[in-house]
Amino acid sequence: MADVRYFLGIDVGGTKLAAGVVDNDGRLLCAERQPTQAALGPEIVLERLMAVCHAAIASSGVQLSQIVAAGIGCPGLIDSVQGLVDLPGNLPGWDRVPLAARVREALQMPAFLENDANAAAVGEHRFGAGRGAADMLYLTLSTGIGGGIIIDNQLYRGSTGGGGEIGHMSLRYDGRPCVCGSIGCFEAYASGTALAARAREALPTHPDSALAMVRELTAQAVVEAVRAGDALAKRVWDETMIALAAGLASLIHIFNPSRIVLGGGLTNAGELLFEPVRRHVRTRAIRPLAEACEIVPAQLGDNGGVLGAAAVGMARSPV
Amino acid sequence: MADVRYFLGIDVGGTKLAAGVVDNDGRLLCAERQPTQAALGPEIVLERLMAVCHAAIASSGVQLSQIVAAGIGCPGLIDSVQGLVDLPGNLPGWDRVPLAARVREALQMPAFLENDANAAAVGEHRFGAGRGAADMLYLTLSTGIGGGIIIDNQLYRGSTGGGGEIGHMSLRYDGRPCVCGSIGCFEAYASGTALAARAREALPTHPDSALAMVRELTAQAVVEAVRAGDALAKRVWDETMIALAAGLASLIHIFNPSRIVLGGGLTNAGELLFEPVRRHVRTRAIRPLAEACEIVPAQLGDNGGVLGAAAVGMARSPV
Repeated sequence: MADVRYFLGIDVGGTKLAAGVVDNDGRLLCAERQPTQAALGPEIVLERLMAVCHAAIASSGVQLSQIVAAGIGCPGLIDSVQGLVDLPGNLPGWDRVPLAARVREALQMPAFLENDANAAAVGEHRFGAGRGAADMLYLTLSTGIGGGIIIDNQLYRGSTGGGGEIGHMSLRYDGRPCVCGSIGCFEAYASGTALAARAREALPTHPDSALAMVRELTAQAVVEAVRAGDALAKRVWDETMIALAAGLASLIHIFNPSRIVLGGGLTNAGELLFEPVRRHVRTRAIRPLAEACEIVPAQLGDNGGVLGAAAVGMARSPV
Repeated sequence: MADVRYFLGIDVGGTKLAAGVVDNDGRLLCAERQPTQAALGPEIVLERLMAVCHAAIASSGVQLSQIVAAGIGCPGLIDSVQGLVDLPGNLPGWDRVPLAARVREALQMPAFLENDANAAAVGEHRFGAGRGAADMLYLTLSTGIGGGIIIDNQLYRGSTGGGGEIGHMSLRYDGRPCVCGSIGCFEAYASGTALAARAREALPTHPDSALAMVRELTAQAVVEAVRAGDALAKRVWDETMIALAAGLASLIHIFNPSRIVLGGGLTNAGELLFEPVRRHVRTRAIRPLAEACEIVPAQLGDNGGVLGAAAVGMARSPV
C-alpha cells in the first residue's frame, strides 16, 4: 500500500476564506470556512486566514508534521514563482502581498500560490471532470469569467504567470466596456453579472416581465424566471448562451482541447445552460474540432476551491 | 566541430510549390519554386511537387542520403500524426491526402507534415524573430490569419492536431460572416482580405478617394493610399489596426506570451502597422501582461515557408 500524503488547500476569496486537509486521492478530510471581511485589509485578513488553517488542521486529526505542503488559490494577478498577489479586485489593499511566504512562515511548510481559477482547473483535472484529458480548459462562470489552461497535463501559466485570463479575451471588440478597462471582453457578455445586466437594461421596455418584481436582479433570478417561462428572461438567457458558445468556439479553435469543464454559479442552471451552449458551439466551431471536444460540468462543487488549492500543493511538491 | 545535418523543407501553397535544402543552423542552400496549378487536382500537384523536391536536392549539391528528413508545411486542417491533409480551401480536391506518406515513399526519407502557419511558427522560433522566446505566438496576416503556438519551446498542436486556428477566434461574435462558416472571426476583421473589403464597402460614400481609381482594390493598394494620405484609406486602416490589436490583446490575456511574431503580406507595411498595433494593445491589454510581451516582425521573409518546413523536419527527427 502506497503511503497516504496530506496537503492543505487554502481558498482565499473576496467573501469567504476556506481551508481543508486533502489526501493524495482527493479525499477532503475536513473544511473550515469564515467570512473574509475583506474591508479590514490584508493584515487582518491574513490573521483570520491563519486561524482558519489551524482550525482545519486541528479538526482533520492529521498532525501538522504529516502535511507535505499547502496550496493557495487566490483571485488577482498572481506571480506564482515569487508567490505574490497583486491587486485582486475584491480584496482591497492587496498590493504585492507575499501570500505564499506568509503561509510558509506561519505554518512551517512549503506553500505554493496560484490564481483561483488556475487552482480550480488543476483540481478538476486531478480529481474532477477533467481527469484523463491531457489538453483541457476550465472556465468558472460567476461574477466574472475565470479560466485555467491545462496543456499536456500541466497548468499553463505563460511567460510571467499571468496566462489564462480567458474572461478578458475580446468577444465584441467594439462593444461593452469591461471592469478590466478593456472593451468587449468575454466576461462582459457571458458572466453571471453580464446576464443580470442584460436583463436590467431590457426591463424598461418589458415592464410586464416577472423580473420587474424581483428585489435584486441577479443571475439566479434570471435563471428562475427562465424556468418559469418569462419571455424577457428567456431572451436575455438565449443571448447570453450564444455569447458563451461563441467564446467557447474561439477557445476550441485556438486550443483544440479534448474537454472544456465549466464551473461557477451560472452552471447551477444545468442542462438549461449546457444544451444550448453545446448546440451553438456545433454551429460555430470548425466541425472536427467541435467534435473532438466534450463540454462538461465541473464535479468538485463547493469544495472545488479547497480541493484545487490542495492539488496545486500536490502538483508542485516533489513526490 | 559538430556534424552538419541537412533537411528538406517543402512548402505547399495554393499558388506556389517550393522546396529547399536547409542545414541545422538554418542556412538555406538553395530553393526551387513552381506554380502549384491547384486546379489540376492532387495527383498532378503531387507529381509537380516531387519534381520541385528533386530539383532542389540536385541544385543543393547535397546527396539524397545526407538529408535526415523532410518537413512539409501545407494549408488546411492537418492530421500531423497520420500525416493527412484535409480540405485546404485553396487546394481543391484534397480530401484526406496522405501527403507525408507520399513524400516519404517518393524521396525515401522520413517526412513530417504540419499546417503551414504552424510550420512558419516553428521556423521563426528556431531561426528567426522567435529565438529565445519559450512561449511565443506566430501570426501570419495575409489573405486570412494563420497562427502557430509555441509553448515551452514546443509547437502546441492540441488534442487532435488542429490547434492554433487563431484566425477563427471570435472578435465580434455577432458581426461579419467568415469564410469558415462562423461569424465575426478575427480574420474577418484584421486580415488583408478584411482590410480590402472594408475599403470596398466604404467606397460608394467616398467617391473622391484615390481608391476609387485603382484597378484592383487589394490590401496593398490600401497601404499605398494610406502612405499617399488618402482619408478613406487611412480610416479603414485605423479600424483594421484596432481590430488587429484587439485580437492580439485577447491572445496576450490568454497566453501571457513573451513575444508575438507577425508575418505575412500585411506586415510589409512595417511601422505603419506595428506602431498603432503596439499602441492600441497597450490601451486594451492588462498592463503587466502587455508589458511582458514584445510584438515584432517575422524575420524569415519569403523563405519562411521552406525554412519553417525544414525546422519541422528537424524538430521531429531524433538527434
